[in-house]
Amino acid sequence: MSTARLEAFSDGVIAVAITLLVLNLPIPSGPSVRLAHELASHWSQFAAYVVSFVTIGIVWINHHSMIARLARGNHRILMLNLLLLMTIGLIPFSTGVLATYLGHSGSRPADQHIAALVYAGAMLLMALAFSLLNWNILMRSPDLVDPPLSETERRRIFLRAASGIVPYVVAVALAPFSAVATLVISAAVAAFYALPVASGR
Amino acid sequence: MSTARLEAFSDGVIAVAITLLVLNLPIPSGPSVRLAHELASHWSQFAAYVVSFVTIGIVWINHHSMIARLARGNHRILMLNLLLLMTIGLIPFSTGVLATYLGHSGSRPADQHIAALVYAGAMLLMALAFSLLNWNILMRSPDLVDPPLSETERRRIFLRAASGIVPYVVAVALAPFSAVATLVISAAVAAFYALPVASGR
Amino acid sequence: MSTARLEAFSDGVIAVAITLLVLNLPIPSGPSVRLAHELASHWSQFAAYVVSFVTIGIVWINHHSMIARLARGNHRILMLNLLLLMTIGLIPFSTGVLATYLGHSGSRPADQHIAALVYAGAMLLMALAFSLLNWNILMRSPDLVDPPLSETERRRIFLRAASGIVPYVVAVALAPFSAVATLVISAAVAAFYALPVASGR
Amino acid sequence: MSTARLEAFSDGVIAVAITLLVLNLPIPSGPSVRLAHELASHWSQFAAYVVSFVTIGIVWINHHSMIARLARGNHRILMLNLLLLMTIGLIPFSTGVLATYLGHSGSRPADQHIAALVYAGAMLLMALAFSLLNWNILMRSPDLVDPPLSETERRRIFLRAASGIVPYVVAVALAPFSAVATLVISAAVAAFYALPVASGR
Repeated sequence: MSTARLEAFSDGVIAVAITLLVLNLPIPSGPSVRLAHELASHWSQFAAYVVSFVTIGIVWINHHSMIARLARGNHRILMLNLLLLMTIGLIPFSTGVLATYLGHSGSRPADQHIAALVYAGAMLLMALAFSLLNWNILMRSPDLVDPPLSETERRRIFLRAASGIVPYVVAVALAPFSAVATLVISAAVAAFYALPVASGR
Repeated sequence: MSTARLEAFSDGVIAVAITLLVLNLPIPSGPSVRLAHELASHWSQFAAYVVSFVTIGIVWINHHSMIARLARGNHRILMLNLLLLMTIGLIPFSTGVLATYLGHSGSRPADQHIAALVYAGAMLLMALAFSLLNWNILMRSPDLVDPPLSETERRRIFLRAASGIVPYVVAVALAPFSAVATLVISAAVAAFYALPVASGR
Repeated sequence: MSTARLEAFSDGVIAVAITLLVLNLPIPSGPSVRLAHELASHWSQFAAYVVSFVTIGIVWINHHSMIARLARGNHRILMLNLLLLMTIGLIPFSTGVLATYLGHSGSRPADQHIAALVYAGAMLLMALAFSLLNWNILMRSPDLVDPPLSETERRRIFLRAASGIVPYVVAVALAPFSAVATLVISAAVAAFYALPVASGR
Repeated sequence: MSTARLEAFSDGVIAVAITLLVLNLPIPSGPSVRLAHELASHWSQFAAYVVSFVTIGIVWINHHSMIARLARGNHRILMLNLLLLMTIGLIPFSTGVLATYLGHSGSRPADQHIAALVYAGAMLLMALAFSLLNWNILMRSPDLVDPPLSETERRRIFLRAASGIVPYVVAVALAPFSAVATLVISAAVAAFYALPVASGR
């Protein structure tokens, strides 16, 4: 399979997932609502929207770089790409869970921590699926890499991308202690990749 | 009509349908909710999400292979492709029905079986629409197949793909007896096509 | 503007709109629900899903034929295409309105007729927007038509496509008398264009 | 990164966002509803749908013109494009907020003004993100502009596009006084760009 349609389908799924994030933003309603107060109390929904949007956007950019190195697809790569898309498709759900519990003053602390675990866990799954696909392209199918790269170079590219797993492991580990810390770490990862310092990639 | 735009539109519909599956995952809310318990009790929603996502993903891959053999479209092929897309568009609905009833401890057994019938029935419809389109391309419009294939070869490809109908007939037949069996069969079909053993396609 | 990106964006909007139709299909829930009875009582939702899906699908096919005659876009064509997409975007809403009232035994007859008016009205708007764009391409911008066509030929193509307006005028006129008649007429239009008899287009 | 995939992904996000607007249109339900009255009382939802649809559509057209001048992307342009897409993704939310409060006779005037502020604020954010990206292409990365343009010409194009910020500043400033004025200004901006007078762009 040519990579063009693989990219087109992946673009479609990622574009839908990133735009579905907005459905998590609650539109307050009811006659007794005080809109300004309601919107302010949902700060966590907006923060989670921004963090998840930028994160998926960066995954899209990195996905493009990954596939651009690929001459053509095979069955294993197609299935691992599907696995990656499945984890991306979960982000609107995990974002909704975190935003619902983090911003809700009445939610139990235990629930906030579980919501943070769901959020960080989904991010970690996405990072793992990305690295699994990347490893299969760079380390298991070097003949599909075009132009050809030395093993040292391929290993270097893979490890650099795979290092993105580390902060999400930390975020998962911190979830039982602080839901805010989980969101802050996810935001920091997104900011790191978004800022010019990382533009060498 | 060139097949490029046919593919682009099909990719779009399939990408939206596969991503809409996530809308079925329930975000528990309310002050008295216990999030961990709620999420655990929705195991069927997550299982159905994974099975349906992989199934639609495999249909997308097979759709690509099918259209790649086609030199150009005609009116009948366009309409049968639309029929296939319509059945794919139903999967988020049938997935939601199964997940709602399979995972709900309070739902009546009879309803669980009907939900399984809806799920397996939608999968069967999709498999039938796929084979109908494939039959029209391979067996009724051999002049549109490029590069040309012998009738034996075309029949072989068609029958191999059409054999995917069989397990869904079984799943439909088992639905009145066990909703879980229906989901397990659907999962097994997805796993069979996803695993390397089937990578010869 | 080249027509390639015009087509790509239109494909995207139409693919999303056609797939959003499924969100109108209700997933019954609640402990006292009898699923088989509930699904059967929603026959109108499924009928409306099929009719609207096929109708949007045919509009997509005809949109492709229309744009394929266009060498390049200009501002007026872009805006009229946007108007057409806006009317297509309304179909999931109008389908939801008709399905909700047509299938609900408790809804007042007057409401059923208004729901039918909304449905047929949206279809008519879409047909009018299509013809307005087609008229601008064929009759007002003949220099953008590639390959060039005689005025007689262009007029013939335009009138043939514009004749699709007539049944929707009839459907709108019948809405105050019978909601079912409106859906039947819409279904007949879809079937007419879908069946081989119209494959000359 | 080539601009082709940048455009394809942007097209996808914009197409989903523009089509999600329809989810804000409420389908009245319930046995005691009077459909005609309900639909009429939701005039603001339909007005907001049209204004937001045309606005996003015009942003899409202008986005195409902007990217068409770009030879290739770099990290900063990718991230600023993502920022623009994030603001576009907010429009269905801000449209829903305005429509809910503007059309609801029981909503407090203070809430209507805040809803208008949300709506105009989201439009302003989108216009600012557009201009920031445009400025980075035209004024900071002139070597990426293809074919090359003189600084005078680049400045002229940028300022012309950036002038679209002004009416949204006015709309934000008027929001605390009149929610209707905010919608009218947004509609006027959309109409100005949609009408032939602006077709010189």
